[in-house]
Amino acid sequence: MPDDPRSPSLAAWFLGPRAENAALLERLVTEALRDHVFWRRNFHPEDGITIRETERRNEGYEDAVATLTQELMGLLAELKRGVPFFSGRYKGHMSFEQTIASQIGYFAAMLYNPNNVSIEASPVTTRLELEVAAQLGAMIGYEASHSWGHLTSGGTVANFEALWIARNVIYLPLAAAGAADQLGVSIDVERLDGTRAPLSELSIWELVNVRDPAVLDLWGRLWSIAPRADVQRALSAHSLSTVGYQDYARRLASAYGDTLPASVVLVAATAHYSWEKIVRALGIGSNQLVFIPVDDRYRMNPDALWRTVRELTASRTPIMACVSVCGSTEESAIDRLDEVLEVRERAERELGVTFHVHSDACYGGYAASVSRRADGSRRTAAEIRESMGMSGAWPDDEWVRGISALERADSVTIDPHKLGYVPYPAGALLLRDRRARELVAVDPPYLLPTQGLDSAEDLFLGRFIFEGSKPGAAAAAVWLSHKVLPLDERGYGYLIERTMVGARRMHAALAEADFGEMRIVLLPEPDINIVCYVMHHPSFSTLAAVNAFNEGIYARMSLGEPGAAPPYIITRTRLQAPMYSGAVEPLLERLGVCGVAEWEASGADGLVVLRSTVMDPFLVASPPAPDHIAGFVSALRTAALASLDKEASG
Amino acid sequence: MPDDPRSPSLAAWFLGPRAENAALLERLVTEALRDHVFWRRNFHPEDGITIRETERRNEGYEDAVATLTQELMGLLAELKRGVPFFSGRYKGHMSFEQTIASQIGYFAAMLYNPNNVSIEASPVTTRLELEVAAQLGAMIGYEASHSWGHLTSGGTVANFEALWIARNVIYLPLAAAGAADQLGVSIDVERLDGTRAPLSELSIWELVNVRDPAVLDLWGRLWSIAPRADVQRALSAHSLSTVGYQDYARRLASAYGDTLPASVVLVAATAHYSWEKIVRALGIGSNQLVFIPVDDRYRMNPDALWRTVRELTASRTPIMACVSVCGSTEESAIDRLDEVLEVRERAERELGVTFHVHSDACYGGYAASVSRRADGSRRTAAEIRESMGMSGAWPDDEWVRGISALERADSVTIDPHKLGYVPYPAGALLLRDRRARELVAVDPPYLLPTQGLDSAEDLFLGRFIFEGSKPGAAAAAVWLSHKVLPLDERGYGYLIERTMVGARRMHAALAEADFGEMRIVLLPEPDINIVCYVMHHPSFSTLAAVNAFNEGIYARMSLGEPGAAPPYIITRTRLQAPMYSGAVEPLLERLGVCGVAEWEASGADGLVVLRSTVMDPFLVASPPAPDHIAGFVSALRTAALASLDKEASG
Repeated sequence: MPDDPRSPSLAAWFLGPRAENAALLERLVTEALRDHVFWRRNFHPEDGITIRETERRNEGYEDAVATLTQELMGLLAELKRGVPFFSGRYKGHMSFEQTIASQIGYFAAMLYNPNNVSIEASPVTTRLELEVAAQLGAMIGYEASHSWGHLTSGGTVANFEALWIARNVIYLPLAAAGAADQLGVSIDVERLDGTRAPLSELSIWELVNVRDPAVLDLWGRLWSIAPRADVQRALSAHSLSTVGYQDYARRLASAYGDTLPASVVLVAATAHYSWEKIVRALGIGSNQLVFIPVDDRYRMNPDALWRTVRELTASRTPIMACVSVCGSTEESAIDRLDEVLEVRERAERELGVTFHVHSDACYGGYAASVSRRADGSRRTAAEIRESMGMSGAWPDDEWVRGISALERADSVTIDPHKLGYVPYPAGALLLRDRRARELVAVDPPYLLPTQGLDSAEDLFLGRFIFEGSKPGAAAAAVWLSHKVLPLDERGYGYLIERTMVGARRMHAALAEADFGEMRIVLLPEPDINIVCYVMHHPSFSTLAAVNAFNEGIYARMSLGEPGAAPPYIITRTRLQAPMYSGAVEPLLERLGVCGVAEWEASGADGLVVLRSTVMDPFLVASPPAPDHIAGFVSALRTAALASLDKEASG
Repeated sequence: MPDDPRSPSLAAWFLGPRAENAALLERLVTEALRDHVFWRRNFHPEDGITIRETERRNEGYEDAVATLTQELMGLLAELKRGVPFFSGRYKGHMSFEQTIASQIGYFAAMLYNPNNVSIEASPVTTRLELEVAAQLGAMIGYEASHSWGHLTSGGTVANFEALWIARNVIYLPLAAAGAADQLGVSIDVERLDGTRAPLSELSIWELVNVRDPAVLDLWGRLWSIAPRADVQRALSAHSLSTVGYQDYARRLASAYGDTLPASVVLVAATAHYSWEKIVRALGIGSNQLVFIPVDDRYRMNPDALWRTVRELTASRTPIMACVSVCGSTEESAIDRLDEVLEVRERAERELGVTFHVHSDACYGGYAASVSRRADGSRRTAAEIRESMGMSGAWPDDEWVRGISALERADSVTIDPHKLGYVPYPAGALLLRDRRARELVAVDPPYLLPTQGLDSAEDLFLGRFIFEGSKPGAAAAAVWLSHKVLPLDERGYGYLIERTMVGARRMHAALAEADFGEMRIVLLPEPDINIVCYVMHHPSFSTLAAVNAFNEGIYARMSLGEPGAAPPYIITRTRLQAPMYSGAVEPLLERLGVCGVAEWEASGADGLVVLRSTVMDPFLVASPPAPDHIAGFVSALRTAALASLDKEASG
């Protein structure tokens, strides 16, 4: 869309592949630096000078400056061996350059180095952090008055926190039942059928199957059944977080004479490998991580989810949470979260079970901005298609429904340092119901219990989050970027649209390319902007041969070897069993070298898949911008031929 | 020490309270930016221009630049309401400004935005990260060939990882015994008395009491008792991390007919509040966090530790780890880690129990640089005193022994973003034995099992650490700072010496100051550089009155209220029961308003203590530098008088 009125803004958002906006960035950096310098000079000017001018002419001073300058030159030289994420020639991991706004926001705030652990150490940037989280919440459709969120160091910590909170939610009714019993009072809760009953009348199975909002209502009412300190003590005596897993299981067995199987966490088969770290660290155990198969579009299969929930119910296994994915790491697939939520509703109705629904939208969350008009209302699929200049039927209504369902997830994680185009580190955790954060709160000794919203205690983020000290600069970076690129069709929506169009074009170009005797087997068109493919040649008759061939291509199109200078850069992944069972079958069929059984037997090897993330919004720019799609296809052909030669001769 | 030859270097290390080095920083920032710009332009110059000059004259482009500039101005104005950490007038939290080296290192690398999750996304900065960790390891005395470390987002994640690893270590012999049994093979292990025995002959109690090095030897040998995949499978079937806590306890009970009490974590009473989050999240439970009382210098009391270990042994309670503190958050106390380690040796010898020893040196770790000569050897206490220009007996041999014992801790965490004077986020985890990282490794689908040290797989940090994506810029910042300020008496050692001297001077000045009718009750002289004190007046006869008085002083010397502009800024904490039992008694005696029982009954209120961190190395600079010690004493007197008026009239 060369005459799209939004196109000139895009030209101003990034430094540019040729550093076209170098003068702009330098002006702003200098401005921010001098502004900070004069802030220092204006602070109690009567204090005079600490570092004297004469001292700065001392030999020792000059030596120290010389060391600094020389070591910096060394570092700058080293950095040039880094990865050219900024270039249209980089088509690998989910990395591109950052918005100028975020770079300058980070730099400006870093000079002040605020610590967002507490408002006292960051009077400005803690508020920016909460504002940023509210913006992300509004983008996905959370109610501003009920939701809450904050930034983290990244997706792993954000997802970890989400599951940590989910665990506290699922077990709260059990703890509350114990606490109420100890205090000799009765308190009721809403059951799945909508009726209310005292906790003491619920079975252990019913207690672990209370809806999140009902649990949080219970939490709120708990504090009035007895003096606050007594409630605190009684709850502590029965909470998993205080008692710990080892004693908790024993107590349940003695209190209910009924030991449930270990609670499980359902995750889409495409879930990031960090989920395994998370369940291990939390003490849940990776055996309790149940992969839900994906369909041939790499989206969680709702029928498979339903079957799993039914089986788990039959064995009375509690489900702690179901983790749906919005923008899978490998394929950028967007789960049909609307269908996942329908499965939960059906489970509540027909099976009497429920669970926390989390969306891991670390990669894809920002794509929700594509669905937003400037006034915040939702665009239709047709509007989006027109805005993108797509002639086909994509993105369709289902795409919009999947993205829109984020507003009904109990928690969502979104990484600004991925499709938010800001520097590391910036992840985010969003809670649909802000009360959930109270369940993991720990009071540091500086603080008395919270005095209410917006009090200094409430703005002491360290109470409610897992991490402690953390950069206020990250909040400033995201904040300024959101100010310049609004989270709708004018800003991020447009930016991400361009990458989606670019990825589709690249997918089409690869499908149509002439690879001679070689063939390309493409994964389906992506839901966002990651293109995956397997190169093939008729001479290969085994999975191992195809894998070696593709590894050879990858080696020629990556920076692995020192001195490597491939014209285009890609990455690769492995589709392994059992996670990709189902999804991988159409690929294996088209490759025709092996069946599912052989693939399953390959274990960690799996099927090697080449992978190109298109975060570059300029991929479909018109001349004089380079045609990186044609260049890429040609480079892939060359690398494939070289790999073929090697395989043939080797 | 005005004629210390190191003094002129100090003048070049920071931007300075009056931004005296503004020209230097601006020159280096511009240099780094332009260097990056021309790197882009030199990358495939044939690609031509993507953002055309004509486009940059378009109205839409100019609008976007105007928005960016305007919003940046807004941000810069907001930031001025931030905290003047750079000023000698800030005597609050552990915050100061950053070294110029770290600021420029961060900025330079941020332009490249490397992601240190894997070498592929950060060919340069992953290596810098490992180099930095090795430097920190060398500083504390770890063997380069055996140890390993990496950076984290901060101390909470680093400490969390340390305990996560410790848990995997303590439970490995149990898992290995189960695995060996399943595989039908025998494997032996070193017992505490030095003899070796097959795992199958050890009781459950002996299995959880194997020394860390013996566990890691066992780990190494495990992989040769059967084909690797079989070992993997058998270990998984018996490991806590796969099985999860809920099933694990049941299995142990059925396998050994003996259920041990839940394992505990011993922590110094001064441990940071995040330890409570950590044990909650790990599923250990905060009930299992056992606080070891501190002595009147706020250091873990080794006798109390011994008594606790003996009691736990009597109840057959396994000890997962003992967390000693090097530089407590509130007081900067340095535990006598040498004595803690002696307690462990004695426990191994006399009680037949052992545990992982971790040092939380997040705050104080860098103080180890004070103990290092330029050639890496240790300085004596006398040398350090001379270097500091201290006439008294401090720092003494015990101080050096406590710091030197870090080399024998199984794991140590150190935050470069505290006494390393670098921007957030930068924590570090150091492992004495690098093999321990293998116990928490998770393989992402991109990777095959590790091919050995320095292979791409080994440099994929995401395998061995909890976090995923993380800023390579943080590694570059720490790296450049370590290059300019070596981790010995020339660099960080000198910097931290200056703050230690400053804190001692401030302590002495407060002790000698004339507060009229009011009195100051000081905590003991700090081990590093945090000065704590309680103001008092004869008219107060209750703890609550003293607390209110000090809260009033704090309110007048902090930025809590909008528009507040106190001449000096402090912070405060609360010494709460039971953590500070023992240590607080001398203070209560000197205050004379209440006994220990009343203090214990005050719960979360505790004793309010005013707190001033001296990270400012210029505090004892000579004129024309301002005399901030005299200024501070005077400001404290004024605030105290105002608070007294308020209390009297209120």
